[in-house]
Amino acid sequence: MEKFEVIILGCGCALPTSKHFNAAQVVNLRNKLFLIDCGEGTQIQFRRNKLNFNKLGHIFISHLHGDHFFGLMGLISTFNLLGRTAQLYVHAPTPLRKILQPQLDYFCQEINYEVILDEIDSTKHQLIFEDRSVEVWSLPLNHRVPCCGFLFKEKPLKKHIIASKIKQYNIPIYAINAIKDSKDYTLPDGTIIPNDQLTTPADPARSYAYCSDTSYLPKLAEYLQNVDILFHEATFGEDKVNLARATYHSTAAQAATLAKNSHVKKLFIGHYSARYDDENILLNEARNIFPESFLTKEDDIIQI
Amino acid sequence: MEKFEVIILGCGCALPTSKHFNAAQVVNLRNKLFLIDCGEGTQIQFRRNKLNFNKLGHIFISHLHGDHFFGLMGLISTFNLLGRTAQLYVHAPTPLRKILQPQLDYFCQEINYEVILDEIDSTKHQLIFEDRSVEVWSLPLNHRVPCCGFLFKEKPLKKHIIASKIKQYNIPIYAINAIKDSKDYTLPDGTIIPNDQLTTPADPARSYAYCSDTSYLPKLAEYLQNVDILFHEATFGEDKVNLARATYHSTAAQAATLAKNSHVKKLFIGHYSARYDDENILLNEARNIFPESFLTKEDDIIQI
Repeated sequence: MEKFEVIILGCGCALPTSKHFNAAQVVNLRNKLFLIDCGEGTQIQFRRNKLNFNKLGHIFISHLHGDHFFGLMGLISTFNLLGRTAQLYVHAPTPLRKILQPQLDYFCQEINYEVILDEIDSTKHQLIFEDRSVEVWSLPLNHRVPCCGFLFKEKPLKKHIIASKIKQYNIPIYAINAIKDSKDYTLPDGTIIPNDQLTTPADPARSYAYCSDTSYLPKLAEYLQNVDILFHEATFGEDKVNLARATYHSTAAQAATLAKNSHVKKLFIGHYSARYDDENILLNEARNIFPESFLTKEDDIIQI
Repeated sequence: MEKFEVIILGCGCALPTSKHFNAAQVVNLRNKLFLIDCGEGTQIQFRRNKLNFNKLGHIFISHLHGDHFFGLMGLISTFNLLGRTAQLYVHAPTPLRKILQPQLDYFCQEINYEVILDEIDSTKHQLIFEDRSVEVWSLPLNHRVPCCGFLFKEKPLKKHIIASKIKQYNIPIYAINAIKDSKDYTLPDGTIIPNDQLTTPADPARSYAYCSDTSYLPKLAEYLQNVDILFHEATFGEDKVNLARATYHSTAAQAATLAKNSHVKKLFIGHYSARYDDENILLNEARNIFPESFLTKEDDIIQI
């Protein structure tokens, strides 16, 4: 299996505490890194996890609240000091440009690489990035400011060619990719070997969804069906369901209900309110509804 | 002795590393806190050092480079989330208002306390703050952007009254402050007890100077004479004296030369370039010139 994992850099709520950093995660797909959210301290956590800054080309910011955003200028500055020359994309809802551009203009007057700001329409579920291995789709969320989640969908993978068949039919290297792409193979004497005799099925394409911050939004299930891993905020427990509603956040039970209705494989929760000394309270409330629920913590690596 | 100490929250250079946080120090004078510089992660370090946010009323920013500034918005936001109502002053050179005000306007739309921005003329040595126990003076520095250091001068202290004399002359409580302020005491029978029989001399008023970032500036000695503790940046060693000049930074030897010429009691250095794995190289270069030189590191407490 090709690498597809999520590294948790921070999973705290609004206040950075001695226990949690602010929101930030890195998606590592085949050694390309994608950063989701960038709270204060993200660059410190990035280094601590020995992640390679040069492998990062795209940053996805869910919304412009400080705990998801205040680490961004520091990261961009540090890249410049380290001599980056490759373009860096920042995808985020409005008012990204209004807030970030004046800071870029002042703090990065001698920048040696291009920062491309991509303002997302956070009200739509749409493709915001793709390369040959992944599509990233926005997930419209419901928070106090424009906010969206992100759905990482691995593109369909190639079939596996059976090694012994290469030898048996003396298949040349140049023909292998076509076979992995489901083509039959024609021997020099004109005999056609059907593809299903040469290959085993491709690994299923995997997917990862990130939903933070948002009030409980049942209709998200429409976009999240059969996702492998769902990260969903669980700021509060059931004791604070009214506060969750008032602040446009979710409870652990609501996150679990969404996971259940979306038939995801596993749910990971985070963005815990600092009031919960023991986050197992949140975990237990989630597991009562969706047993495959797990807590995140800093430096965790989630295999997709 | 009344408390007068400096807590090092960060003493790294431009890049936060796994070893050092960006520039930030807290001056604790009689349990009032003053923050000097506010690099990314300052609020995390503030908490880690169990400092009380409510004791902080004034922040002094030397200059608007990210490694001295990027933690400020997070700190201001966190104070708001924690329910602060007391005014907060931010003293910094230009263009403080231009950079910070748009962020305050966006990120702190529902702020419950007043943030007062005080733009300092960084070209002048002048009084920028005083209360009943301290004066804070700007120190004009020479960096790539407007930049100043800060000189904390404790106000003259009161004399110590000799406890046995209170009993001997039956001195009432209301009279004690006047005696500490050098007044003589008149007994009910008209006898005058001279003040020097009632008191021992006041502790000498102490001072702390912070100089970062700056090229070597010999004329600073004029403002730093007999300062108790001088913090001075020492970004480079003598191997990089030309780079220090080109980037408007100082070497450890230059910091030590200034300390020597200023007759300070002790020199503390920091703002180390990340290239020095072993900062003792810098320390040794400083001690060759000024033996009372010391390294700073995170969470150190320097007694003034």
